[in-house]
Amino acid sequence: MKKLIKGGTIVTAADMYQADVLIENGIVTAIGTAFDETGVEVISADGLYVFPGGIDPHTHLDMPFGGTTTKDDFRTGTKAAAFGGTTTVIDFCLTTKGRPLKEAVETWHEKARGKASIDYSFHLMISEINDDVLEELPQVIEEEGITSLKVFMAYKNVFQADDSTLFRTMVTAREHGALVMVHAENGDVIEYLTNEALAAGNTDPIYHALTRPAELEGEATGRAAYLTALADSQLYVVHVTCAEAVKQIAAARQKGYRVFGETCPQYLLLDQSYLEKPDFEGAKYVWSPPLREKWNQEELWNALKSGQLQTIGSDQCSFDFKGQKELGRGDFSKIPNGGPIIEDRFSLLYSEGVCKGRITLNQFVDMISTQSAKLFGLFPKKGTIAVGCDADIVLFDPKVERTISAKTHHMAADYNPFEGMKVTGEPVSVLSRGNFVVKDKQFVGSSGSGQFIKRNKFLR
Amino acid sequence: MKKLIKGGTIVTAADMYQADVLIENGIVTAIGTAFDETGVEVISADGLYVFPGGIDPHTHLDMPFGGTTTKDDFRTGTKAAAFGGTTTVIDFCLTTKGRPLKEAVETWHEKARGKASIDYSFHLMISEINDDVLEELPQVIEEEGITSLKVFMAYKNVFQADDSTLFRTMVTAREHGALVMVHAENGDVIEYLTNEALAAGNTDPIYHALTRPAELEGEATGRAAYLTALADSQLYVVHVTCAEAVKQIAAARQKGYRVFGETCPQYLLLDQSYLEKPDFEGAKYVWSPPLREKWNQEELWNALKSGQLQTIGSDQCSFDFKGQKELGRGDFSKIPNGGPIIEDRFSLLYSEGVCKGRITLNQFVDMISTQSAKLFGLFPKKGTIAVGCDADIVLFDPKVERTISAKTHHMAADYNPFEGMKVTGEPVSVLSRGNFVVKDKQFVGSSGSGQFIKRNKFLR
Amino acid sequence: MKKLIKGGTIVTAADMYQADVLIENGIVTAIGTAFDETGVEVISADGLYVFPGGIDPHTHLDMPFGGTTTKDDFRTGTKAAAFGGTTTVIDFCLTTKGRPLKEAVETWHEKARGKASIDYSFHLMISEINDDVLEELPQVIEEEGITSLKVFMAYKNVFQADDSTLFRTMVTAREHGALVMVHAENGDVIEYLTNEALAAGNTDPIYHALTRPAELEGEATGRAAYLTALADSQLYVVHVTCAEAVKQIAAARQKGYRVFGETCPQYLLLDQSYLEKPDFEGAKYVWSPPLREKWNQEELWNALKSGQLQTIGSDQCSFDFKGQKELGRGDFSKIPNGGPIIEDRFSLLYSEGVCKGRITLNQFVDMISTQSAKLFGLFPKKGTIAVGCDADIVLFDPKVERTISAKTHHMAADYNPFEGMKVTGEPVSVLSRGNFVVKDKQFVGSSGSGQFIKRNKFLR
Amino acid sequence: MKKLIKGGTIVTAADMYQADVLIENGIVTAIGTAFDETGVEVISADGLYVFPGGIDPHTHLDMPFGGTTTKDDFRTGTKAAAFGGTTTVIDFCLTTKGRPLKEAVETWHEKARGKASIDYSFHLMISEINDDVLEELPQVIEEEGITSLKVFMAYKNVFQADDSTLFRTMVTAREHGALVMVHAENGDVIEYLTNEALAAGNTDPIYHALTRPAELEGEATGRAAYLTALADSQLYVVHVTCAEAVKQIAAARQKGYRVFGETCPQYLLLDQSYLEKPDFEGAKYVWSPPLREKWNQEELWNALKSGQLQTIGSDQCSFDFKGQKELGRGDFSKIPNGGPIIEDRFSLLYSEGVCKGRITLNQFVDMISTQSAKLFGLFPKKGTIAVGCDADIVLFDPKVERTISAKTHHMAADYNPFEGMKVTGEPVSVLSRGNFVVKDKQFVGSSGSGQFIKRNKFLR
Repeated sequence: MKKLIKGGTIVTAADMYQADVLIENGIVTAIGTAFDETGVEVISADGLYVFPGGIDPHTHLDMPFGGTTTKDDFRTGTKAAAFGGTTTVIDFCLTTKGRPLKEAVETWHEKARGKASIDYSFHLMISEINDDVLEELPQVIEEEGITSLKVFMAYKNVFQADDSTLFRTMVTAREHGALVMVHAENGDVIEYLTNEALAAGNTDPIYHALTRPAELEGEATGRAAYLTALADSQLYVVHVTCAEAVKQIAAARQKGYRVFGETCPQYLLLDQSYLEKPDFEGAKYVWSPPLREKWNQEELWNALKSGQLQTIGSDQCSFDFKGQKELGRGDFSKIPNGGPIIEDRFSLLYSEGVCKGRITLNQFVDMISTQSAKLFGLFPKKGTIAVGCDADIVLFDPKVERTISAKTHHMAADYNPFEGMKVTGEPVSVLSRGNFVVKDKQFVGSSGSGQFIKRNKFLR
Repeated sequence: MKKLIKGGTIVTAADMYQADVLIENGIVTAIGTAFDETGVEVISADGLYVFPGGIDPHTHLDMPFGGTTTKDDFRTGTKAAAFGGTTTVIDFCLTTKGRPLKEAVETWHEKARGKASIDYSFHLMISEINDDVLEELPQVIEEEGITSLKVFMAYKNVFQADDSTLFRTMVTAREHGALVMVHAENGDVIEYLTNEALAAGNTDPIYHALTRPAELEGEATGRAAYLTALADSQLYVVHVTCAEAVKQIAAARQKGYRVFGETCPQYLLLDQSYLEKPDFEGAKYVWSPPLREKWNQEELWNALKSGQLQTIGSDQCSFDFKGQKELGRGDFSKIPNGGPIIEDRFSLLYSEGVCKGRITLNQFVDMISTQSAKLFGLFPKKGTIAVGCDADIVLFDPKVERTISAKTHHMAADYNPFEGMKVTGEPVSVLSRGNFVVKDKQFVGSSGSGQFIKRNKFLR
Repeated sequence: MKKLIKGGTIVTAADMYQADVLIENGIVTAIGTAFDETGVEVISADGLYVFPGGIDPHTHLDMPFGGTTTKDDFRTGTKAAAFGGTTTVIDFCLTTKGRPLKEAVETWHEKARGKASIDYSFHLMISEINDDVLEELPQVIEEEGITSLKVFMAYKNVFQADDSTLFRTMVTAREHGALVMVHAENGDVIEYLTNEALAAGNTDPIYHALTRPAELEGEATGRAAYLTALADSQLYVVHVTCAEAVKQIAAARQKGYRVFGETCPQYLLLDQSYLEKPDFEGAKYVWSPPLREKWNQEELWNALKSGQLQTIGSDQCSFDFKGQKELGRGDFSKIPNGGPIIEDRFSLLYSEGVCKGRITLNQFVDMISTQSAKLFGLFPKKGTIAVGCDADIVLFDPKVERTISAKTHHMAADYNPFEGMKVTGEPVSVLSRGNFVVKDKQFVGSSGSGQFIKRNKFLR
Repeated sequence: MKKLIKGGTIVTAADMYQADVLIENGIVTAIGTAFDETGVEVISADGLYVFPGGIDPHTHLDMPFGGTTTKDDFRTGTKAAAFGGTTTVIDFCLTTKGRPLKEAVETWHEKARGKASIDYSFHLMISEINDDVLEELPQVIEEEGITSLKVFMAYKNVFQADDSTLFRTMVTAREHGALVMVHAENGDVIEYLTNEALAAGNTDPIYHALTRPAELEGEATGRAAYLTALADSQLYVVHVTCAEAVKQIAAARQKGYRVFGETCPQYLLLDQSYLEKPDFEGAKYVWSPPLREKWNQEELWNALKSGQLQTIGSDQCSFDFKGQKELGRGDFSKIPNGGPIIEDRFSLLYSEGVCKGRITLNQFVDMISTQSAKLFGLFPKKGTIAVGCDADIVLFDPKVERTISAKTHHMAADYNPFEGMKVTGEPVSVLSRGNFVVKDKQFVGSSGSGQFIKRNKFLR
């Protein structure tokens, strides 16, 4: 049956106008103002924004980490994402040295299958480059449509790759049309600082931040940018947190290099002082890279506004405070890194970005959806509202005020890092390929309806 | 009668998709794929791009300069613009010290009335700030919808304003919602260098460039940016030509300031060596600021690509070589500044930018149209293709190859600075508010059909 | 009679060693350790540093300003300078438009003659460039040995020169071997901001700072640097106060330009908050450029340490609080600019720079004396301790602690901006060309013994 | 017996004056003009500069490398150094993982003992940090006076240390008063590029340069600077070759960090095109980092002039072309890196730096001698001419013109990279601690007279 979203204000990365959206078979087939409504399900969007569904380029669902597993899996994670206005997630598929890449991809397919209520894709982690990997990688890119490769410059002895691996990944990515993603922190030095802190009895959560200073992110970001330039490749720096890293990205871009950057709501809105909350509550705010001194926030906003950073990811990686974050009591290095953000990413950027005049509505859509679609080969099926694209659509009430809370959120984690924060704006209904996942703030989707999306190659 | 543009590929600043565009009463009323064609004029766009009409933010039509007047007036200029894919121009309205602003605006209305075949608006030159100007200016902004103010930092004793005037214009612009535009060159030093060169018998066209070195543009651009930051105002730097100026704009933007920049095809594609052409032919290439050393071109392309520069203007200001440019034989300072570019701006950026992989199709539309619409208050009526907007549309053949030549161009000037250059792509038909101005490469418009557009205030 | 300074530690811009200094006829004739003391006046320097006498490159003695005249003239000013360890001052000779330069120089000779107890020279202010000036200037440079030319970019309608004058001064300086000095603030905008503040009833001293923000110093410094590069000339930026200006100087130097910078003790040690002192006491801290936000201090120290700034001037320009600074009650723009610093410049840099580990002893000597000697053509007669140089020597007790106070200082002004500040180190005795001016902290010099020094040309 | 150097012009890092230098027991005891010459050996320096002996902070004498050993050992190397005006060398003591540091130091003592004709000291290479090293290192610093530690960021699987080792060396250096030196190139990526080039059959010398691009030096320099800032330590970057590295050092210094840089004559005067010389002659110009594109030279000169780089090292590491460089025929990676420079370092900087107006005479002395003395704890015994210092003195004829050639040089290597270059200026006589090593251009020294110098700790 056809659907007609009627009376709303459509906003894309470029446009903003009043019109109705006609949907057939999950696809937007027409945009206009005077449609024949016979046999059409009319959905009123009066007073609402009609946004393309959010794309979250950075999630970790059902991921093992430090002896535990993220609280949210593809079932709870994608459901919460949908509530928050996100209709596509790209999750990180971890690989194991010495094992086939496809085995890892299959593992991740298993995790998502039958659980996801919105569409999804995977980035592929690269932990080593050898003949086997070089042979298999082009196949994964071609056949699976997994066109983004993640390299960790941190997490020594766990995920960390050396510069040779990073560089060879860049060369391979250039040849086969993939985008290289880096977690940019100097893992060698972090390991040393961590050991020193623990040896000195400095075990509280704040030492997580103090042993991963901004210099180490700036350094690694600069290093990755230099190597990208040399490899004539393309780079996407995940979770940029600080002025030092922004500076490196901006410098590379001014020279004409294909270097892109993502930041996250937590870095825009929270700061290092949160790690000092009493009663071990600081553990709730342990991310890597860590929250920074507050003055960095303005630098991040400026970088978004002036086009030096392109996207907003959630870095969703949720753990309960009870039982999970608590693993790090007495040893900050054992606190699982990450937090539940997948649901609030969209609204936080709207409320703090658009409502506070830091970015325009078009920029909001660009950062929350379109840029990720373009960089990661989902465009034009995803990332916009235009004839022919998937009807991944968010009806958004721009005026409602509400308070973020773990009591009301839909993520599985037992706390919310933005607990008590007032935001303006909320998704009312969310469609994935034309089907309601959330309708009038109620979940009406089904686990398993989300599809794996093979993505296009990176377009230089 | 309704029109339907059928079968083309619509490209906006964000999107690219196949669909048909329905036009009623000059407005886009629907975009879709299966329209009832009864009583509809169907325009085939098979194999063509459907672009929003170009917006040229920088023209000088029918302008007196150095004792002569530009060859193209609103009749020939807008006709040529239309041939080139441009459907709106914003022309500079010159003012005279001591005379009412409205008198100047009326003079410009006179120049355009009955002649323009596409829509137009005016920027207002500010040459002095005093009580009269301060009283009149808000009225001009409000009533005339002239929401951009131009200040010259060069042309000593002619157009040049001092820093106090520039700064007060910035303050006024902030208060009343206008955008300040600057011609950024240090006029004091240029005057001295010019006098010195002439006194030394250095009278050839190349001395026009040598007496206006890039340092003086970098300096003035930096100065304007500093003052904008201090005034908490907004700045648009016209005709950016060189790395020094780009650097200043990028630095300001990184700090979060509202500073924007325009460059022109001539600076992207021609260079200082052209002024050394024999037989006084160098005079054809006399612009202010002058063409620069060739290495600056890559810096300009990088700045466009990375978002440091936003728009492409033509700086259309045409003079015949015979009789006009020749006024400067024996004295380069008497060569009228400028050239005929209004027609080729659009195609040059497509051919050299998109076809050569320097920018994407979306970026092309953004630079050639959308950004100017947004910065100058024409959006969303102009600058995009979306329901509700003016049907200013270009049907563009992306594959045709042709050679630019004064013999075939539609501008009145007797030469073309890009003479002999091969370009890919050409507008086939052009509509202004739903009416053909150019149809199948034939002019079918009428002088006088173009309307003056009152523009919105600058949106911070 | 010969003198022997015995037992001290000689410190120059490069060296530090224990040795004795033999002086004959006002000249250092030998440095060694086992001199025949027959017929020699032996001066014990046990436990003392033996420094070259300080050179203050920036003083205004007996200068008319805003309807009053600086409290210190050459008599009190040079006496106080000597107490503070300074043995040469270079004062600014003001000129008047339309009057011969030599008339101004003669006026300044008159001010100094018979009064100065230490040696002195003059910088020449350039307020206009015309044929008369161009004819006379080379003579002043050659005959008077006045090889530094000062241009004001601020003080609109008083001292301010336009960019053409500035640039022509640079060209002339290059041709005739002079160094161009600028007061770098944008006077046009300052005038406007000042008028606005006063019109709004904002008349307190703090508005002096708020109407001369750092952006205007950064702007003007960048402008002067650009013009210097273009003129292939040499530039000395007086009284650099802020990070914005440092950044411009450092950028120019990295490109290889001959751009130098001076800062002053007040900018290193005081900050904008001083202007908010109650009971109009803020007026004591009114300098132009103004004191800045405190964080700029570290940037200035870093610039000194890393060689981006070269010298320390006092910008001595003293007024009594009573009767002079008070002229600005109710109108900050009438507060005479400046303060009494000539005496404490030397000790403040030692105490805050060397004792606090910010600079080395050699750097101290370089900044307080040697660099000024080299830049302004006094070297090697002044600025060091070496055989053949003038015996301008300071015996300095590095350990004594004392408190700066107007009650004990030797300047004529009735207050001291560093009142109550504890410093380490004090000149014990000071010699000018071998003669004691201060001996065991008592003045033993004579007004009139100071000589005018013709300086060498600027050495590129 | 006393010596008197008479009639010359003494030049130090700060001063320049005519005077005579009295030497007793190898020490400068007096400087003056009218010494009693009874019983004094008078050495005429009429028309000569009297410079402090050069200090070469970067030599590799008698060093094994790539299966061969440098041609020059301490006998020939120090003799040649003396001919060239250098009176102290600091050589790199290589260490072996798992072996005691003192064993390595003793090996180096063995190499020098009985051979060196001028004074010498050692830097200590750090290839690993573990408990043994941490225990032994402070002893080596204290007891041996070896106060500089060298870490290689390149030469994978040979010398290269990881970032953890580098950072821990920085921390240790801060604690114990040493200066950390880095060879800054990214060894991981170089190894990959080298393997790729060889696999592709690109075996000529030019590929040595192409597989070690400037980006990899810029990257590593930036990395080292970031880590230094974080460790609050001190860094000396050896052999800086390019603009990218200079930029990183300058940025760190502007922030106030203790980061210093050395460049070498080969990088100032030769360029990458030399590696393309036919008949394998390009191998003579194989250094690591490699010679760069010519435009970098001006950036290096600017950095020296503006104080961003401090010292000139030779990176002496000589191999014969025949039999040694030739080991790399058919495989550029087997060409021994380095060349014979120890002799010409001094004269090249004088001729190209001072005579061509790029640096001043004082700057020359500072770079060639004084700064190395200060940074490496040799000051004030070495590095200047002042009472109490070692009489390490060079009498230099500033006017003689000569041609550099392997036929006339005193190094053992069979070629000279500057063969045929005309230079102005030459050392006539050279004294080490008051004894002639070279007299009237003849070697009169003796192998073994050079002493090992225990150095002071790094002075922050």
